[in-house]
Amino acid sequence: MAGNTFGEIFKVTTFGESHGEAMGCIVDGCPAGLEISISDIEEELKRRRPNSALGSRDEEDKPEILSGIYQGKTLGTPIAIIVRNTNQKSSDYDELKEIYRPSHADFTWEAKYGFRDHRGGGRSSGRETLSRVAAGAIAKKFLLINGITISAVMTPSISAEKLEELKKEGDSAGGIIHCEVKAGTTGLLVGLGEPVFDKLDARLAAAILSIGACKGIEFGAGFSSANMKGSEYNALPCSGILGGISSGKDLSFNAVFKPTPSIAKKQKALAKDGSTKDIEIKGRHDVCIVPRAVPVVEAMTAITIADFLLLSRCARI
Amino acid sequence: MAGNTFGEIFKVTTFGESHGEAMGCIVDGCPAGLEISISDIEEELKRRRPNSALGSRDEEDKPEILSGIYQGKTLGTPIAIIVRNTNQKSSDYDELKEIYRPSHADFTWEAKYGFRDHRGGGRSSGRETLSRVAAGAIAKKFLLINGITISAVMTPSISAEKLEELKKEGDSAGGIIHCEVKAGTTGLLVGLGEPVFDKLDARLAAAILSIGACKGIEFGAGFSSANMKGSEYNALPCSGILGGISSGKDLSFNAVFKPTPSIAKKQKALAKDGSTKDIEIKGRHDVCIVPRAVPVVEAMTAITIADFLLLSRCARI
Amino acid sequence: MAGNTFGEIFKVTTFGESHGEAMGCIVDGCPAGLEISISDIEEELKRRRPNSALGSRDEEDKPEILSGIYQGKTLGTPIAIIVRNTNQKSSDYDELKEIYRPSHADFTWEAKYGFRDHRGGGRSSGRETLSRVAAGAIAKKFLLINGITISAVMTPSISAEKLEELKKEGDSAGGIIHCEVKAGTTGLLVGLGEPVFDKLDARLAAAILSIGACKGIEFGAGFSSANMKGSEYNALPCSGILGGISSGKDLSFNAVFKPTPSIAKKQKALAKDGSTKDIEIKGRHDVCIVPRAVPVVEAMTAITIADFLLLSRCARI
Amino acid sequence: MAGNTFGEIFKVTTFGESHGEAMGCIVDGCPAGLEISISDIEEELKRRRPNSALGSRDEEDKPEILSGIYQGKTLGTPIAIIVRNTNQKSSDYDELKEIYRPSHADFTWEAKYGFRDHRGGGRSSGRETLSRVAAGAIAKKFLLINGITISAVMTPSISAEKLEELKKEGDSAGGIIHCEVKAGTTGLLVGLGEPVFDKLDARLAAAILSIGACKGIEFGAGFSSANMKGSEYNALPCSGILGGISSGKDLSFNAVFKPTPSIAKKQKALAKDGSTKDIEIKGRHDVCIVPRAVPVVEAMTAITIADFLLLSRCARI
Repeated sequence: MAGNTFGEIFKVTTFGESHGEAMGCIVDGCPAGLEISISDIEEELKRRRPNSALGSRDEEDKPEILSGIYQGKTLGTPIAIIVRNTNQKSSDYDELKEIYRPSHADFTWEAKYGFRDHRGGGRSSGRETLSRVAAGAIAKKFLLINGITISAVMTPSISAEKLEELKKEGDSAGGIIHCEVKAGTTGLLVGLGEPVFDKLDARLAAAILSIGACKGIEFGAGFSSANMKGSEYNALPCSGILGGISSGKDLSFNAVFKPTPSIAKKQKALAKDGSTKDIEIKGRHDVCIVPRAVPVVEAMTAITIADFLLLSRCARI
Repeated sequence: MAGNTFGEIFKVTTFGESHGEAMGCIVDGCPAGLEISISDIEEELKRRRPNSALGSRDEEDKPEILSGIYQGKTLGTPIAIIVRNTNQKSSDYDELKEIYRPSHADFTWEAKYGFRDHRGGGRSSGRETLSRVAAGAIAKKFLLINGITISAVMTPSISAEKLEELKKEGDSAGGIIHCEVKAGTTGLLVGLGEPVFDKLDARLAAAILSIGACKGIEFGAGFSSANMKGSEYNALPCSGILGGISSGKDLSFNAVFKPTPSIAKKQKALAKDGSTKDIEIKGRHDVCIVPRAVPVVEAMTAITIADFLLLSRCARI
Repeated sequence: MAGNTFGEIFKVTTFGESHGEAMGCIVDGCPAGLEISISDIEEELKRRRPNSALGSRDEEDKPEILSGIYQGKTLGTPIAIIVRNTNQKSSDYDELKEIYRPSHADFTWEAKYGFRDHRGGGRSSGRETLSRVAAGAIAKKFLLINGITISAVMTPSISAEKLEELKKEGDSAGGIIHCEVKAGTTGLLVGLGEPVFDKLDARLAAAILSIGACKGIEFGAGFSSANMKGSEYNALPCSGILGGISSGKDLSFNAVFKPTPSIAKKQKALAKDGSTKDIEIKGRHDVCIVPRAVPVVEAMTAITIADFLLLSRCARI
Repeated sequence: MAGNTFGEIFKVTTFGESHGEAMGCIVDGCPAGLEISISDIEEELKRRRPNSALGSRDEEDKPEILSGIYQGKTLGTPIAIIVRNTNQKSSDYDELKEIYRPSHADFTWEAKYGFRDHRGGGRSSGRETLSRVAAGAIAKKFLLINGITISAVMTPSISAEKLEELKKEGDSAGGIIHCEVKAGTTGLLVGLGEPVFDKLDARLAAAILSIGACKGIEFGAGFSSANMKGSEYNALPCSGILGGISSGKDLSFNAVFKPTPSIAKKQKALAKDGSTKDIEIKGRHDVCIVPRAVPVVEAMTAITIADFLLLSRCARI
């Protein structure tokens, strides 16, 4: 458990530092015979790119498939995908070498490993989610042939005017993503999830909370159920997950994301020498990361569901 | 991933159906040399018992240690603990054999396995958490010698009058549990959590959401951070988790639990033959399960932290 | 990887020290709907018992199923089985407390854990294999309904006269076990094994070498292939395993077991204080452990094949 | 368990088909702070290359490190290494598309996945071991700073004249590799291995048997112990592994490799249509693969020992 692998049968490993040579993923355990083209991956990666002048660095993010696919179909062997890092401006980060940015992982990574790649956050950068989206594209394709679709949306969405305003202030915003898994007509979204520790909601929670800025998740009535009576709760429409196992109905959850921690506004920061310093973070950062997290949430959900779909083949003799 | 094991180094496996022979757990990977007595386990189990006339069946829950401990100390071998089921009233459940109780796992278990032990919910019963609490007692002991303590509380608490009222109505209530992990003075609550998928918060989310009635979790500012600006969020007191790794500060989270689904009030329920039936659930059920979930939340938190504490020994050469 | 679990889908965890309260196993991931009776387990355990005056302690080894089976069928939940230790003569081991018996794990366990249960070898005792045989009984049943059978035999067998002679000398013997996995007519023994690290032969090697006294394993032509030409080797009858994947043909292997290390004859042994002592090992020990290892080899083989049989359900879309 | 990952803490995943874009590996869980240069990897890869006119295709095998290393030291993040495939002659394999070569994995891969990359054996090619050697270079470096060294040798070695002769005949040879793990003076080669299923010898067996052509392994006295008495066996010099745990002494094993299955000589082969055909295998193949397997055996041994060395940090409180 060095932590860079997710899943048991449909297993995703990611690698790459923000300013290193490349980002990438290995998808191991994808069944043989699934049609995959490079454009399946490119399309998902496009959805993750910053789409305005308000965003962080815009790289072409061109994926290359190194293995696992032959004549357009999966071989059952590990699928390796890499995306070169081409647009690094490492010098932007020079002055952050000895400073721990607020709400960033700088301090904890140094405390854990005694050594870190400070350029752009290194492995703790949001750029790591690119690898998840690439892997998720394959999971989505596998779900699709099983009639299952996944779609997420920021809710409420953030207006262009609000973003402009924050950019001017040198500030940032958080938000909530609502994600739905739709059962389709194949009836295959049933019986997914493994009691007792690997309940479907427990694994989805792990999948989504593993995304950098995510600070919480709720299923069904979620936090509002704290104030409901049993008779009220039980009268709600049948849930997509009961006892940690999918019921065959559509299922959904909300995940909350904190505001982008990298802001242009002057802030206090802890320095390596113990002193407190004023910093103004340079570099290109998203005013609101939430729209770009949407395909990441979908990817992690797809990977989780794909894994359970395969595993469900082993539930009965 | 049959789902009954949690953890990688400090590894807990549970077993047992509510009305079967026994509940139990195996704790594998607990380091050798830790002092454990049967009363360490009994004390935690006591905290999980119903403490009033308002609760479900009250068994003695006498734990027996079958292996792994010799002369009062852990051997480094698997610690097996069992608790016999002595107070089953299986006949209470006879009429539920062909009925799927609302908000229960009855339907989904039957859909998944094609066969289930309907008595008291079988393996999906809340009684399963007994095994977690037993295992958690050992994890807590290990954390204690490392200066780390865990304490949870229902917040706000529920009043005796409110419980009486609900009982009369044949209804139930949910609630929120707040859990704190305190760093103590040893400085060991730092560097715990593994990027990128096994972040400390991601693993805690999985641990807590795997508890039957839990419907959501939030860390730090949680769902309220959706409406904060970056400058506001960054100005909050230093969080216990940054980038999925513990910072050495105390850390905390909130988890929400839905109302007990088993209520005496008449409800509509789906029957195996597809019809809808009126049911009034008999048996002994908690009006509010949340106070009894408190030691379960502590146990799962302790197991998660213990696992990461061991794993952190491998972070550096 | 605390080491007491084997398998990924069909997952076996064992526990228990030779002179502790009980031995036992948890079988997690056995599919729902498999018919299992207590006599299935008793019969296999009987095959493991010493069958003569030449053997070690003869306990009744009465298994008790604590969970996972309801109305004679597996539920898909963890199957817990325990066997109480009833016939311990711990005092036989008193003088070995400070001595490391030759070819035993006494020294290495103390070196690793700093603490051990010296009575009868504790967890390193051959008695641990009882748990494997219990779990293997379930794996065998699962394979049987898939047309696959497993049978092992000591080859050459050891004669009663040879055993008598060794007993008189206070000495012991090793031997070789030949194990066959027969495909039957269902055609299901094909495509088992996962490239590249979890090849069928690699996993079987791990399974068999994990049995205490095993010192080697060979598949097909094995060690004799070192002296064959490619043209000779390729002309051999089609192998049951090619490239780590089963071909659908019967497959077999040989495993070698060292002589029982506990012998009555006077030997030199290392003591805890660094001195060398003469010892004559008391207690009841098998002159030749190999016949009793036969059902253990079968059990580990069955567990390995059952795991791969389930996993093979996930190879294709 | 899709099978392309080995290890629990020091975890190696490999990918790549012989005639695909690239071979590669991810090393996850390597501790932070280890000095690694590209030449560490190049040197090991060189040892694996064919060193004469007798061998298979000779590619430059230029490794590229994509992540995990910064300023010459490991970051604690996944180390991704790739080697481009540059010298494929896929057309050599055109006529093998519908034929299953004797003693090769062609038939079983097709049976398992229903689809395969036939070019050069695809993922089942010996070229896959390149990824292991790259990962092993890092494991070796980690062991070195802990005083542990690994060296393997073909025994007996094969003479140049013998190779010439076989080449003329269009035939091939197998052989035995002897591998030694030397403890050095740091005293760290003690207490490695996890009872009961993850014994050091069991894991080494899995590691070595996972190498394509390996057909058997033996530890210590190995197969000869079948004919020894206990008193003789116990009198042997203290073994490096007792009860599956390393004793601190040097340890060793023998592994046998079958003759290269690809031979120029005319052979009978099964065709996809069920007929039997005469084939003469073209392409570049090693007359004796064993010398090239030496660094692979070392690599797998190093990966196994490195994993246990890290895990041993968790054995005691």
